[in-house]
Amino acid sequence: MKIGILGSGMVGQNLGAVLALGGHDVVLGTRSPDALDEKRGHGGQSLREWLGQAGSRARVATFREAAAHGEVVLNATDGQGSLNALRAAGAEQLRGKVLLDISNPLDFSKGMPPTLSICNDDSLGERIQAAFPDVRVVKTLNTTNTYIMGDPRQLAGGDHTIFVSGNDAEAKALAAGYLREWFGWQDIIDLGDITTARGAEMLLPVWLRLWSALGTPMFNFKVVR
Amino acid sequence: MKIGILGSGMVGQNLGAVLALGGHDVVLGTRSPDALDEKRGHGGQSLREWLGQAGSRARVATFREAAAHGEVVLNATDGQGSLNALRAAGAEQLRGKVLLDISNPLDFSKGMPPTLSICNDDSLGERIQAAFPDVRVVKTLNTTNTYIMGDPRQLAGGDHTIFVSGNDAEAKALAAGYLREWFGWQDIIDLGDITTARGAEMLLPVWLRLWSALGTPMFNFKVVR
Repeated sequence: MKIGILGSGMVGQNLGAVLALGGHDVVLGTRSPDALDEKRGHGGQSLREWLGQAGSRARVATFREAAAHGEVVLNATDGQGSLNALRAAGAEQLRGKVLLDISNPLDFSKGMPPTLSICNDDSLGERIQAAFPDVRVVKTLNTTNTYIMGDPRQLAGGDHTIFVSGNDAEAKALAAGYLREWFGWQDIIDLGDITTARGAEMLLPVWLRLWSALGTPMFNFKVVR
Repeated sequence: MKIGILGSGMVGQNLGAVLALGGHDVVLGTRSPDALDEKRGHGGQSLREWLGQAGSRARVATFREAAAHGEVVLNATDGQGSLNALRAAGAEQLRGKVLLDISNPLDFSKGMPPTLSICNDDSLGERIQAAFPDVRVVKTLNTTNTYIMGDPRQLAGGDHTIFVSGNDAEAKALAAGYLREWFGWQDIIDLGDITTARGAEMLLPVWLRLWSALGTPMFNFKVVR
């Protein structure tokens, strides 16, 4: 499948590699696609190193080219830059497509741990859907570490939960299928419309504190019922 | 043990009954202790009915009497009324005691689902600790349904998680012991100081949406690691 990924940080690089190695045609979109030797994201890997890891089915390009390429597009940009990155990708390139929105509106400007720049009565997922009404936004994967996002079975055999939020039921069903087929997710809960992205994004503050308390980001929530 | 519970709604009534039936001396504090036939909380049970259920080890009294009675005190009041209820209980009656703060700052004034009246860069747990500096506040139990709070083993044999947040390490250790001994909690995660109550309280929005999505409030989060 042709997949466009917006964002060349740790999340974009990791999911891009998982997808490319899984046989998909991946274009990773970034602001500066020519700066292949620049370190990207918290992982600190350059895009040249990433291309070596992800193999021949992976390319690096602009946000616009990545969006145009993808039959489905992943927003793996930093939350503070997501709307600008999507504008750079272009509404025309995104029109009618399923957009898996993985971003979180984390604001590091007031120190650590970050707060949310949007929350409670709004969410980044909603702002993206409002700014791009012809895009089929599905908020998902934002509630766990990127290595678990891309390979949930490495933790408790995959016995934990991921959420989807969105206004388009068919897009959510497609998204759930991608989560299962691409990554191996088993327990996928449809929270409801895109306003439920508020709750999913508001998991981040406890997530960040759990990272400190547990001393590892390799954990996830399971909704036991 | 002598336990004071502030709040006569569903949470106070249920935990009070569990504790009284477990052999503890429980005083349930309420604004209007004489109105025994008034329906209380979402459960709709009157305090006369509650007294019948909870048995001879349970009494109903004022907030002040409940706080004075308790060696440990539970704040099971509605989040919007918690600070006023604690003021009515009185700083003197609470001084030096462990206060298990179960409340959530849910604001129903803007419709359903409720938003949080405090969040992101503050929490109700912190406001209570700041208003009562001589009280050993431990935020806990606010992230699940009261029936699971009081009997976690009824869901997956108790294989799910509860959090504690607070500034006083000894108070948190005591609280964890109470959770284990009173109710049977097995997986108790210390998130850190009282500022981590932000994350615990910010679980409520996704909790409320999960209640809708799952059609039942009988679920809880497990931190899989």
